[in-house]
Amino acid sequence: MAEKVILILSGGIDSTTLLYQLIHKENYDVCVLFFNYGQKHIKELDYAKYHCTELNVDLKIVDLTFLKDLIGKASALTSQEVEVPNIKEVLGHPQPLTYVPFRNHIFLTLALCYAESIGAKKVFYGAQRHDLYSYWDTTEEFVKRINDIASLNRLHQIQILTPFVAYKKADIIKEGLELEVDYKHTWSCYEGIEKPCLKCPTCAERLKAFKDLNLTDPLLESD
Amino acid sequence: MAEKVILILSGGIDSTTLLYQLIHKENYDVCVLFFNYGQKHIKELDYAKYHCTELNVDLKIVDLTFLKDLIGKASALTSQEVEVPNIKEVLGHPQPLTYVPFRNHIFLTLALCYAESIGAKKVFYGAQRHDLYSYWDTTEEFVKRINDIASLNRLHQIQILTPFVAYKKADIIKEGLELEVDYKHTWSCYEGIEKPCLKCPTCAERLKAFKDLNLTDPLLESD
Repeated sequence: MAEKVILILSGGIDSTTLLYQLIHKENYDVCVLFFNYGQKHIKELDYAKYHCTELNVDLKIVDLTFLKDLIGKASALTSQEVEVPNIKEVLGHPQPLTYVPFRNHIFLTLALCYAESIGAKKVFYGAQRHDLYSYWDTTEEFVKRINDIASLNRLHQIQILTPFVAYKKADIIKEGLELEVDYKHTWSCYEGIEKPCLKCPTCAERLKAFKDLNLTDPLLESD
Repeated sequence: MAEKVILILSGGIDSTTLLYQLIHKENYDVCVLFFNYGQKHIKELDYAKYHCTELNVDLKIVDLTFLKDLIGKASALTSQEVEVPNIKEVLGHPQPLTYVPFRNHIFLTLALCYAESIGAKKVFYGAQRHDLYSYWDTTEEFVKRINDIASLNRLHQIQILTPFVAYKKADIIKEGLELEVDYKHTWSCYEGIEKPCLKCPTCAERLKAFKDLNLTDPLLESD
C-alpha cells in the first residue's frame, strides 16, 4: 500500500509541481491541505481543485479566514487597505509587505497536527529559493528548526520535507514539464484580477522563470 | 505607556495566575488570546471572560473549531468517541490520550502572528512543570526551539516567555493567592460536567496542588 503523506498546496507553480512529483514519481498516497487564510483573492483554490480532481486526490480545505482579523494591516496579501507592492519596491527588502506574519509557520504546524492525527510521517512543503526577493519562512534554516521541534514529539516522528528548497523557479518548471503539469492551471499573482498583473513580486519571478527557459507562460497565452 | 504583550489564556490555574501577575506585578498592557479549538466543553471560556472583565483587559476569542475535524479520534479532548482517561492510566505514559497533536505549537504560532501584526515583542504562555504526567509541548526545550524559529524573523524580534515553566502547580497557586486570584473562577477538568470529575489527569494534579498547600480548592466548596 502506498505511504500516506501530506502536501500543502497553494495552487501556485511550486506546490503544484510537487503534487505531480509525489504522485507520478514517488507513488505516494497524497492528502492535500489547502489553507484559506483570508487572502485578498482565492483564485488559486480553483486551480488547486483542478489538479486534485485531475489526479483524483483528496483535498481538505482549511478555513483560516479569521487570520485576516489577527493580521489587520500588517500584510498586503490580506488587507484591502494595503496595496500590493511592485517588484521594484521589494528588491533587497528584508521583509516586503507581501510577507504574511508567521503564515508558513502556522500552515506547517497545522499540517503536522493533521499528519500526527492520521498517522502520516511526512509533510511536503513546496518552499523554493526565490531569485529576486525572499522571506525568512521559506528558507532551509526555517524548515530545519521546525523539524527540530517536531522531533520532540514522544510518539510520532514526523518530518517536513522540501525537495525544492534549493531550486530556482525555472528548475521547478523544467521538472514539472517533464511530469506534464499544465501551468495554465496554476496561479501566482498576488492580485486577484482576471489576468496576472505582471508587476507584483511573484509575477516578476514567474515571468523571469519562463523567460530563463525560453518559454511563454501558458497563463499569458490568449484563449 | 505600558508595554503591549500577548497572553494565551485557557481559563485554568496557570494562565489565569499569569494574567494577574502581568497586570498587577508587571503593569503590562495585556492582549488576551483564547483559543476555541473544538474541545469537548468550553466551560473555561466563561472563566476566561470573567477574569478579563474583572481586570478590564481585551479578550480575543479565536475560533479554531475546525481543528476537531483535523484531529479526528486522535485526542480525548476533542473527540466525543474517545473517553478521557483517569490519572492512573496516564502516569508514566509518554503521550496520554489527553494530549492534542501539536495544539500548543499551533497556539503559539498564532500568538506570534498576532504579536508581529500589532507590534508586540512578548508572548506569555503559562506552561508549567507537570508533577504527575507531562507533554512534550509544555517543556522548556519546546519553547526554546520555537524561540529559535521566531529569531529568524528579519524585522520583528518576538519572544515567548514562560515564567512558570519550572514551577509546580502548588507554587503557582501560592503566587496567585498573593495576587488575590479567585480560583473559584478557574476550570481545569477535562470533562465538561457541572463539577470537576476528580479523576482525570488535570483534576488529579489540581487536587494534589491544593493538598500540598493544605488548602481546599474553592471550586469544590458547596455554594
